[in-house]
Amino acid sequence: MSLRALLRPRTVVHAHCDLPCGVYDPGQARIEALAVKACMEKYAASDDAQLRQRAVQIKEERANLVKQHLWVLWTDYFTPEHLTAHPQLHTLVWEATKAAGAAKNSLDVADAQKVIDLVDRIDEVFKATNKA
Amino acid sequence: MSLRALLRPRTVVHAHCDLPCGVYDPGQARIEALAVKACMEKYAASDDAQLRQRAVQIKEERANLVKQHLWVLWTDYFTPEHLTAHPQLHTLVWEATKAAGAAKNSLDVADAQKVIDLVDRIDEVFKATNKA
Amino acid sequence: MSLRALLRPRTVVHAHCDLPCGVYDPGQARIEALAVKACMEKYAASDDAQLRQRAVQIKEERANLVKQHLWVLWTDYFTPEHLTAHPQLHTLVWEATKAAGAAKNSLDVADAQKVIDLVDRIDEVFKATNKA
Amino acid sequence: MSLRALLRPRTVVHAHCDLPCGVYDPGQARIEALAVKACMEKYAASDDAQLRQRAVQIKEERANLVKQHLWVLWTDYFTPEHLTAHPQLHTLVWEATKAAGAAKNSLDVADAQKVIDLVDRIDEVFKATNKA
Amino acid sequence: MSLRALLRPRTVVHAHCDLPCGVYDPGQARIEALAVKACMEKYAASDDAQLRQRAVQIKEERANLVKQHLWVLWTDYFTPEHLTAHPQLHTLVWEATKAAGAAKNSLDVADAQKVIDLVDRIDEVFKATNKA
Amino acid sequence: MSLRALLRPRTVVHAHCDLPCGVYDPGQARIEALAVKACMEKYAASDDAQLRQRAVQIKEERANLVKQHLWVLWTDYFTPEHLTAHPQLHTLVWEATKAAGAAKNSLDVADAQKVIDLVDRIDEVFKATNKA
Repeated sequence: MSLRALLRPRTVVHAHCDLPCGVYDPGQARIEALAVKACMEKYAASDDAQLRQRAVQIKEERANLVKQHLWVLWTDYFTPEHLTAHPQLHTLVWEATKAAGAAKNSLDVADAQKVIDLVDRIDEVFKATNKA
Repeated sequence: MSLRALLRPRTVVHAHCDLPCGVYDPGQARIEALAVKACMEKYAASDDAQLRQRAVQIKEERANLVKQHLWVLWTDYFTPEHLTAHPQLHTLVWEATKAAGAAKNSLDVADAQKVIDLVDRIDEVFKATNKA
Repeated sequence: MSLRALLRPRTVVHAHCDLPCGVYDPGQARIEALAVKACMEKYAASDDAQLRQRAVQIKEERANLVKQHLWVLWTDYFTPEHLTAHPQLHTLVWEATKAAGAAKNSLDVADAQKVIDLVDRIDEVFKATNKA
Repeated sequence: MSLRALLRPRTVVHAHCDLPCGVYDPGQARIEALAVKACMEKYAASDDAQLRQRAVQIKEERANLVKQHLWVLWTDYFTPEHLTAHPQLHTLVWEATKAAGAAKNSLDVADAQKVIDLVDRIDEVFKATNKA
Repeated sequence: MSLRALLRPRTVVHAHCDLPCGVYDPGQARIEALAVKACMEKYAASDDAQLRQRAVQIKEERANLVKQHLWVLWTDYFTPEHLTAHPQLHTLVWEATKAAGAAKNSLDVADAQKVIDLVDRIDEVFKATNKA
Repeated sequence: MSLRALLRPRTVVHAHCDLPCGVYDPGQARIEALAVKACMEKYAASDDAQLRQRAVQIKEERANLVKQHLWVLWTDYFTPEHLTAHPQLHTLVWEATKAAGAAKNSLDVADAQKVIDLVDRIDEVFKATNKA
């Protein structure tokens, strides 16, 4: 694989609707998980009451989007064959979506980081199945 | 338990947001699954092109709501203790949401009935855990 | 009617889209009204600022859903014949949706209970018309 | 009242959220009702299958918005005093929202015009109450 | 133009979906901008913590709707010919949507008024192009 | 920069809400643009009427999401300094969102590819500004 190829923008993305259109990408959940973390950081860095309120309410929305994107991947992308090869899949998605729910009532960035890490582990399974 | 008590409207319902407010009820998914089936029946009973198009598009929305309600139950209501007592839970929810997705591209009421039946099986687990 | 029949899960539910699919059920509004009440209870039971903020914002959403479900029943399910038999219908739905709006700015569970009670009265009219 | 005043952009608009923010305007429902009619006209003027499908699906959304805006006006803006002065209000809103629902399955512009006309009659009540 | 014509309700409104249905009207953005301002006024006039929280969260939603309506006008209504005649258009819409975003974190009515004023300037361009 | 660094998953993503949380990424628009194209391909590859209808309606939703993500980038991420350095920005975003609108009524993959290409050009500006 050439350096040029490595530098190329990632052009392969993958199914996320039930057509199914076949374009799925755990990157969608990851972006929202990063936003959850960023909301906590903005909250901590400010003492403006309005901004803090908004950080909490936007964090709630973004955590919902993490859950939504992961649920879609779980039900729509992954197949029984994937599950056989990756038996930890159900538990992994369950824990990641539960962690996203827990982050709604936390202001500790470690809780947001946990969501990001779990999304990354789902992404590893995704990449493994996507190559196969 | 008296007859009067049995006839009383079911007043116990159970958590469906991440507060968590503690009001969850598989009946929400069931109503949408019945609507998916009803859309197929309306489609079959008519030869009006506009109504048929609308039946397909409303069926899509209702099947999405089945999935949404089941995902919320799965992540937000069920606990590791529930899973230990009901190890089939992950597979059951996965299959039910996959069945709801499949019903989007079907006009066979048997496919909608399958969704309803799977929701009923999740409801049995729900009732068992809810009493415990 | 046998005891067995009474114990069976309620399988008849009724129209909630404009197809019309024919699946309507005041139980949808009731679940959301219970959630409004539960949000107030969670608020009262905690002194965590973030949880209290979230209780208020989730209560707002749930009260909107109560209104939405009742409006759909009012316009889509009820007919002129139902209105003749139950002339209090317009006032009842108007008051129930106004009560749901008022609960948004209240933390008094009596205000949430009022919404639940009004939903129950609409449910009585619904059941009467649904048998007819 | 001067000509200049008449030519001025209409700056008084009126409550449409449950804060209540106090900005309500039946013009919102009217715009959507005009869109319902326009969708029917676009449908009739074309024989492209995709455009016709899209006209039907967008008409469905716009008719939903007509209903939504009218329901909000009904519950949130109008008061018991308004009802006493305008006892036809409940029936008028009920019929307007039912007409919007009916337009979803019609391609006859007369059905869309009926929605527009009913919105205009609600607007008359609105203007009368808004001056008082 | 007669007085009677001036007094007539404004019946010409203009395209707001991508059919395109051809019903567009900057009045939609204006109503939401007025609501943003009203939320700030309600906030300032009250010292009830719940109402203040709700004012901030509803302001956020309404500011989003201002942006949404303006973006739709910008992309869907305006044409290259309009841009040639009104070269300030891109900057004007950009600044108006940025001002709506800024109002989310402000409680100063001057910031809401700035949004209203920018919507009015877009409305002037709209009216000029709509007559042409 | 080492090979290892190049192989690392892209962890820098960038603001997409108005907090602002600071997580923005044109990849979100790109995923939806790929889905628009995939819907056209699924449509062309099938002669099942229901699937074809669903492909058109899902394409509509996905094209809306392309527009939404690009509008947010335009208003929320890009600054006057970015515009000075990249004066083509307004035109580029305008054309990309117009192309997404046009793809709604097209079944020609070239029209979807045009959207993808325009998103990629916006991504180039994004990357240039994001490094600066």
